[in-house]
Amino acid sequence: MAEPKENVLMEKITSLCKRRGFIFQSSEIYGGIQGFWDYGPLGAELKRNVKEAWWTTMTRLRDDVVGLEATIIMHPKIWEASGHVATFADPMSTCRQCKKLVRSDQIWDMIPENAWAQAIAELCPSGSVESPRLFNWAKGKGKHLAPNLALVRNPEVTLSFLAERVNAPGALPLTTKELYQYLATDQFNATGLMNPCPHCGGELTPPRPFNLMFKSHYGPVESDENVCYLRPETAQAIFAQFKNVHETARQKVPFGIAQMGKAFRNEVTPRNYTFRSREFEQMELEFFIAPDEAIEAVTGAVATPAAKGHPGEPQPNWGWQMWHQYWVEERIKFYAGIGLPRTTLEEYWQKPEELAHYARACVDILFKFPFGTQELEGIAARSDFDLSQHERCSGKPMGVFEEELRTAFSKLPPEKQTALKERYYQARLKYLTKMGVEVAKAGAEAQEDADGLAKGQYIPHVIEPSAGVDRLILALLANAFTEITETDAKGKSETRVVMKFHPRIAPIKVAVLPLLKNKPELANKARAIFESLRPQMMAYHDEAGSIGRRYARQDEAGTPFCVTVDFETFEGVKDGPQAGVKDTVTLRHRDDGRQERIAISELLPWLLARVR
Amino acid sequence: MAEPKENVLMEKITSLCKRRGFIFQSSEIYGGIQGFWDYGPLGAELKRNVKEAWWTTMTRLRDDVVGLEATIIMHPKIWEASGHVATFADPMSTCRQCKKLVRSDQIWDMIPENAWAQAIAELCPSGSVESPRLFNWAKGKGKHLAPNLALVRNPEVTLSFLAERVNAPGALPLTTKELYQYLATDQFNATGLMNPCPHCGGELTPPRPFNLMFKSHYGPVESDENVCYLRPETAQAIFAQFKNVHETARQKVPFGIAQMGKAFRNEVTPRNYTFRSREFEQMELEFFIAPDEAIEAVTGAVATPAAKGHPGEPQPNWGWQMWHQYWVEERIKFYAGIGLPRTTLEEYWQKPEELAHYARACVDILFKFPFGTQELEGIAARSDFDLSQHERCSGKPMGVFEEELRTAFSKLPPEKQTALKERYYQARLKYLTKMGVEVAKAGAEAQEDADGLAKGQYIPHVIEPSAGVDRLILALLANAFTEITETDAKGKSETRVVMKFHPRIAPIKVAVLPLLKNKPELANKARAIFESLRPQMMAYHDEAGSIGRRYARQDEAGTPFCVTVDFETFEGVKDGPQAGVKDTVTLRHRDDGRQERIAISELLPWLLARVR
Repeated sequence: MAEPKENVLMEKITSLCKRRGFIFQSSEIYGGIQGFWDYGPLGAELKRNVKEAWWTTMTRLRDDVVGLEATIIMHPKIWEASGHVATFADPMSTCRQCKKLVRSDQIWDMIPENAWAQAIAELCPSGSVESPRLFNWAKGKGKHLAPNLALVRNPEVTLSFLAERVNAPGALPLTTKELYQYLATDQFNATGLMNPCPHCGGELTPPRPFNLMFKSHYGPVESDENVCYLRPETAQAIFAQFKNVHETARQKVPFGIAQMGKAFRNEVTPRNYTFRSREFEQMELEFFIAPDEAIEAVTGAVATPAAKGHPGEPQPNWGWQMWHQYWVEERIKFYAGIGLPRTTLEEYWQKPEELAHYARACVDILFKFPFGTQELEGIAARSDFDLSQHERCSGKPMGVFEEELRTAFSKLPPEKQTALKERYYQARLKYLTKMGVEVAKAGAEAQEDADGLAKGQYIPHVIEPSAGVDRLILALLANAFTEITETDAKGKSETRVVMKFHPRIAPIKVAVLPLLKNKPELANKARAIFESLRPQMMAYHDEAGSIGRRYARQDEAGTPFCVTVDFETFEGVKDGPQAGVKDTVTLRHRDDGRQERIAISELLPWLLARVR
Repeated sequence: MAEPKENVLMEKITSLCKRRGFIFQSSEIYGGIQGFWDYGPLGAELKRNVKEAWWTTMTRLRDDVVGLEATIIMHPKIWEASGHVATFADPMSTCRQCKKLVRSDQIWDMIPENAWAQAIAELCPSGSVESPRLFNWAKGKGKHLAPNLALVRNPEVTLSFLAERVNAPGALPLTTKELYQYLATDQFNATGLMNPCPHCGGELTPPRPFNLMFKSHYGPVESDENVCYLRPETAQAIFAQFKNVHETARQKVPFGIAQMGKAFRNEVTPRNYTFRSREFEQMELEFFIAPDEAIEAVTGAVATPAAKGHPGEPQPNWGWQMWHQYWVEERIKFYAGIGLPRTTLEEYWQKPEELAHYARACVDILFKFPFGTQELEGIAARSDFDLSQHERCSGKPMGVFEEELRTAFSKLPPEKQTALKERYYQARLKYLTKMGVEVAKAGAEAQEDADGLAKGQYIPHVIEPSAGVDRLILALLANAFTEITETDAKGKSETRVVMKFHPRIAPIKVAVLPLLKNKPELANKARAIFESLRPQMMAYHDEAGSIGRRYARQDEAGTPFCVTVDFETFEGVKDGPQAGVKDTVTLRHRDDGRQERIAISELLPWLLARVR
């Protein structure tokens, strides 16, 4: 739960965002529409800068990543292959009394952690292996898989139900399907395990899955055959176009495809301002790598991380773990470059029981928002699940061929060949059986895949750094938000806001101000400087009000630098080491109010070095 | 109809786009989805450059325009206010025999123009006023309003039906509603005026309106109360947020709000490659101006265009006609700046009978696509219709107040005050009655508005330059597409493609190539130059294949400049005026293959001056 102080901070940020045109409620004049937010003039620039920084870092400055811009509406089969049609759902209950809808798994949020710990301690003998395991499961995955269980009302019964599952070998984690089936039974209903409605205390229906994809129809007939979805993530388009890009972009594995764009999730309860909204934007990279077996065949041995931290420049012998760690560190570097240093972030390495079945590892990069520490980006090692799914569902080959691998494989000693093929066979078999392919067929297909590896063919694995633009914007706003209290000569104190954005992402880079509006000499010079800077960066020109007021206005907008044309510009600097020098301006720094004089001729390069 | 030669050209463009990764069919591995297209690596860059050029020109380089980025899904009432729920529809018929769907108004496209002219000449005596009027109406607005009429089968009867309408005073143009009502009657069915199905000759159902908005539901309940639409245009968000932006952006009328973003139209028959697709992107500016009555009150007289061409820098006495002409010329200038000079464009000034009822003027900027001359952008003078609608539908005031106007108005002679108020009253009354407001109420409201004007209040009018990104990309591709045939020393001739993009929008700005790959000195130098250019622009580094092949590859990608590091870079230029000079590279121009030597130190500024 957010502390009151932090809610006050969110209110201040929200208010500033509206007042200065960073963020408005969508359709506000019609009472708004829950979960949708618009970016005003300053917000639109901030967002553009963040996206530009990501795109430049991820594509233009790299040899091994290219861009893609796919449509939001794609063929519905894509979402069958990805699993979204079947399982991209939140559990939802309706109150039989007040008819309100409740996100079933959010009821657990009401339970304080120590109540959990105590209930579990009572159930599992202290020191038993089940205790921490159950606790972690219940806090994480279990919350989603066993939603709405009455831990508040009947902790013992509920926990014994869970413990039963926990203690059954291999039964953890439960699948969503299993659990929903169980929860819908009379047997479960008879247990009295359901939580009451948090609104009125009434009886809730068993949780049922509510698919989060926005659904529509394309073409003139509204039939089941014409159903389409608004993409819930940008990633799938990258997988669907993998072959087209691979064939046209002159890239070979390892390489990545980057995409930014809108995505939609019909959240049951959008919340936390723009953090969890129904329409949002993502920046996703799918970085395709060879399976470890292929790397080993070519380089003799797969490099794995020896230590924490950045593993340096990519090497041909990197296995998926090196690539995963590399991308975690690259992404943290990116955040540091736009004003969120490592100290403002947390890394959360998902536990094995929290991972999706196809994932080998996933790191969440978290930021401490005023409403709690939440995810900015996830970096997942997704095995070859995605391309394999599209190959199976579309019937189109998604693999690649490498002459180098074929040659290397053929030169390996037979026992090494057998060992690598066996490992690849097992990995493929695991995937195929997990996806419900019948045993005999799965065996034959996995064998074919293993034979293919020896011939230089494989389906690429993928590392996926997936970031949310809007939550990043919110993190940047929260991180930049600073209140300062100043006391004037008369002893009157005033609190005002300074938005300390990194110059690279600040909406306005520089404001050019004549000290006085009514002196044509000052005004003309300021205008001329402004016009000279503007083609290179977002600049602002402001003549209205006292200079202190104009500085304060720019502080609120987060403008890192103000340039003031004053009398010394024409008459020469009054004193100090530059005394007598003409054609200088006052350069004011937003963060500490420090002022220095700089030659007009040096202004552009000085600014460019800081704002790009 | 496109001529065969032009279809061949479209095929060539489509093929190149797929082969080089400009454009792919969305969801191709699943058989595609009609009306959706993805941009591959080169296409994504091209599109980014075009959007960046628009945004820079329209917002950053102007004092009087700010940006906005609103959501795609907005409150459904917005689309009621805008009229899209009621009338954003295409007429559609179903064949009772083959069950195919037909866009009713496209059947008319099958009728050659001279058949039209002849039929009309037979019906209307030569020289009668009806003849050209009917002809123009039938070719333009009538095509949409009276779709599917059997001009082929029964030209006399059909035309007499039309002529009846034409001759009834005030009955032209028919409203969509009137016509659909009529077409659904037995009376009409009995006329035998329906066209046959163009696919099988079967009987078509009367046209019925098919709304082009993609429909979905937000929130967990799929009910009528939760209907939402994917925006069919970006413009409405600008109107809905007008007050928020006006209050926060420190702008006063005249000023504009610019937005780029996705829009969706569920076209019955998407066609012409990416030209008419179901998901597309728009770049729209809504430029808000004062009504002419307010301008006249403040400046004494409203300036109106005296001549064709650019009217120069905006002036306080400009009326809507000046602003409209200004924006037409500004937009043409923009196209020239990205490689579509005026000679490649056509201006089409819509005729009074073609205009929407609220529009005062509309100019279409057309481009000759291989499949026909079609619209790139429309620049409409939309009166105060849009803001008025949102004021009426939301109940929130959308007007502005100007102290300057209030003061000026109060100083006018009484007869001038009366005249201006009367004109403003009449304009408001016309709008209100047109929108179905009851006469007495409309009169009272219009009177209130006129009194408001005298107090400095008005609802801004708007000039709307609205451009389609994807059709512009297609125009740029078609305009750039050039085939050249070269004959080598052995007399073998080969035809290849050069994409002559303007450097500002070319996906790759410069390719840096070592003459030979296996000379480390050349390769290292090329790499170093590449790395020095890359932070400033999209650069490409290519070592593979002969230098001629690499040039050809870049020509196809549309890269305007190639830089080659060769032996002269180290040994000094062999001959010519630069003989002996070291540290130069060969700079090759894409469009004519011309080569020159340039100092490495001059390369960056030389390129920057051309690509930005």
